[in-house]
Amino acid sequence: LLSDYGLADGFVGALHSVLRTLLPAVPIVDLTHDIAPGDVRAGSQALQRAAHYLAPGVVLAVVDPGVGTDRRAVAVQAAGTDVVFVGPDNGLLLPALDALGGPALAVELKDLGYWLASPGPTFAGRDILAPAAAHLAAGGDISALGTTLHHVSLARLPRPRMVTHPDGSLEAEVTWVDRFGNVQLAAGEGDLAGAPLVVVVTAAGPARTARAVRTYAELADGELGILVDSYGSLALSLNGASAASSLGVAERDLVIVGPPRGEPGP
Amino acid sequence: LLSDYGLADGFVGALHSVLRTLLPAVPIVDLTHDIAPGDVRAGSQALQRAAHYLAPGVVLAVVDPGVGTDRRAVAVQAAGTDVVFVGPDNGLLLPALDALGGPALAVELKDLGYWLASPGPTFAGRDILAPAAAHLAAGGDISALGTTLHHVSLARLPRPRMVTHPDGSLEAEVTWVDRFGNVQLAAGEGDLAGAPLVVVVTAAGPARTARAVRTYAELADGELGILVDSYGSLALSLNGASAASSLGVAERDLVIVGPPRGEPGP
Amino acid sequence: LLSDYGLADGFVGALHSVLRTLLPAVPIVDLTHDIAPGDVRAGSQALQRAAHYLAPGVVLAVVDPGVGTDRRAVAVQAAGTDVVFVGPDNGLLLPALDALGGPALAVELKDLGYWLASPGPTFAGRDILAPAAAHLAAGGDISALGTTLHHVSLARLPRPRMVTHPDGSLEAEVTWVDRFGNVQLAAGEGDLAGAPLVVVVTAAGPARTARAVRTYAELADGELGILVDSYGSLALSLNGASAASSLGVAERDLVIVGPPRGEPGP
Repeated sequence: LLSDYGLADGFVGALHSVLRTLLPAVPIVDLTHDIAPGDVRAGSQALQRAAHYLAPGVVLAVVDPGVGTDRRAVAVQAAGTDVVFVGPDNGLLLPALDALGGPALAVELKDLGYWLASPGPTFAGRDILAPAAAHLAAGGDISALGTTLHHVSLARLPRPRMVTHPDGSLEAEVTWVDRFGNVQLAAGEGDLAGAPLVVVVTAAGPARTARAVRTYAELADGELGILVDSYGSLALSLNGASAASSLGVAERDLVIVGPPRGEPGP
Repeated sequence: LLSDYGLADGFVGALHSVLRTLLPAVPIVDLTHDIAPGDVRAGSQALQRAAHYLAPGVVLAVVDPGVGTDRRAVAVQAAGTDVVFVGPDNGLLLPALDALGGPALAVELKDLGYWLASPGPTFAGRDILAPAAAHLAAGGDISALGTTLHHVSLARLPRPRMVTHPDGSLEAEVTWVDRFGNVQLAAGEGDLAGAPLVVVVTAAGPARTARAVRTYAELADGELGILVDSYGSLALSLNGASAASSLGVAERDLVIVGPPRGEPGP
Repeated sequence: LLSDYGLADGFVGALHSVLRTLLPAVPIVDLTHDIAPGDVRAGSQALQRAAHYLAPGVVLAVVDPGVGTDRRAVAVQAAGTDVVFVGPDNGLLLPALDALGGPALAVELKDLGYWLASPGPTFAGRDILAPAAAHLAAGGDISALGTTLHHVSLARLPRPRMVTHPDGSLEAEVTWVDRFGNVQLAAGEGDLAGAPLVVVVTAAGPARTARAVRTYAELADGELGILVDSYGSLALSLNGASAASSLGVAERDLVIVGPPRGEPGP
């Protein structure tokens, strides 16, 4: 499960209750429910980060600002895997599906026989998606849930920005700021020439020098580092403090990192 | 499980640990543990919202400012169901019990043989309620846990205020502000004449007009809507923003909604 | 499981996913994941509080600011129990191990065959510790995971300060401020003479008088109490409000409590 429901309101409890009623014995993993409300981009990237570690089974993901409208609810099998994603067709699912080989069979959840009766249309997670996920996790046929779609018709968000410039620098979107203040960029190890020092330019402050390291603990207090994080992405980090706060950057900001030249800032 | 323990302190982990020691194989659903500390009213309403979706079994609910005093700890079966509630007798349990047909057999948890030995009396959830819940979830007899009570003696909170006025307006308490800022009222669809527009009056700001809609996404940016939420209650909402912040209302405030007349505010 | 990963980022979801992939059927208890980032002391004390309530099995604990460096990752059996702790060797595990009879067999997790392949070294919880925990929870041999250590070599944090003075007062570190604002001290019931009133001195404000009580509800509004909490420690409490805020104290602060004399403050 992944959602923007938060843990305070009982929405997640309702999902679990419905799943447990239909499916008492299957283990449930909560990836996170603290995606910012309605932030489909952040949800899609959290799901993508989880993709390679998913247990075989069904992934129910709900970040769904268009709930109750004619945006489609879908179930999509990842090609060549035992993983089926269930969620709104708003771009949330595709980055994770792509990480697992791309979408194969896709079905729109139109068969009302699987929906729970509900007093209002604003909680599709409980009323439409959870019963579909339970059906699938119990070994049910995906085709029974509705009508087959061509996966090319699935909604897709723009990829996070990542551009390499002729001078060897790269301009990358901040894809994630984690609890520790690490700043993950939309770039991987291979996107940066392997210099021991890079210059980091943000809109918010002066240019900073970052040292290439493998682990946080190699950094002195206050020293900015750049490393390959546990998802294979480049990340800016401090040791025991928040690089995001120090740099003044947030998710979706652009950051330029590149080889030192002239007089880099402090 | 439902409580005001929060997830930071390990209280919920202690509940799970005790339950798992006594009962390794039964699935556990966490409805929420983020009820505001000591807010029995909020806990009772969260439990009531969950009632129709509960899997058969035992509901352990703890919002218990009177812990360790002579307030009773009870187990109460919901009439005609397989659901038993375990918790303090302070009004927390009755709205959910009422939603499921009312309390049937009620027992005060007096048999010390089921209590865990404990260095202090302030964690009844772990020491008294969890072992009782485990006994019941393992198929044990409710009567073994203590002495039978008449359910009329169970503590009951006042219902949230809801009054209809002769001019067709209704005055209703805010029962819940969720993570998305939706403002749930102590009123259902049938309590409001089906006009497309209603005027919303709060203590905090000028009168506002709300448009009756089915889903959030029908609303323009900044437009206030009124809809039937996923629990069958009337709720005030914005699309992608917090109606509670916009209106300046919080749980327990009173809101008047009614037919437009004269010059409604902006 | 216990960690400082928080619930927002998907780190905990990744742990669960890895565990479920390797170990579909074993129940998992989350003690807490909201230890302050990198706060090994707070994590060690939360784990110690949980120790007596742990179900038999494996405890995976991760508060690991030195991740990826040469700090060791270990598995340690608690003497005379069925509980094995897995985590970094930085002091996190020992207070809980001591509460359960001390460390017996200890192994450094050096056998790479149990590690997950990973793009970066900063998520040992997912890549090294979780697979080791799954191996143990499946009944695997602890010795297979690496090389045996002498448990005397395990890292140990200083104990929280607690000193008794000749005048009968005691000076104790604040070990924990919980969600309700209760201030737990590094002292137990036996450390304080059984007077009905004690004087509480903190660095932050004037001396205060506290009344010895058994439960929060015995206290009048605003009255400070001292009681034995549900872990057997002395704690300062208010009824329905935060004693920590009222006293201006935080974890690790020193508090002096002692017999009244002269003119105690308000």
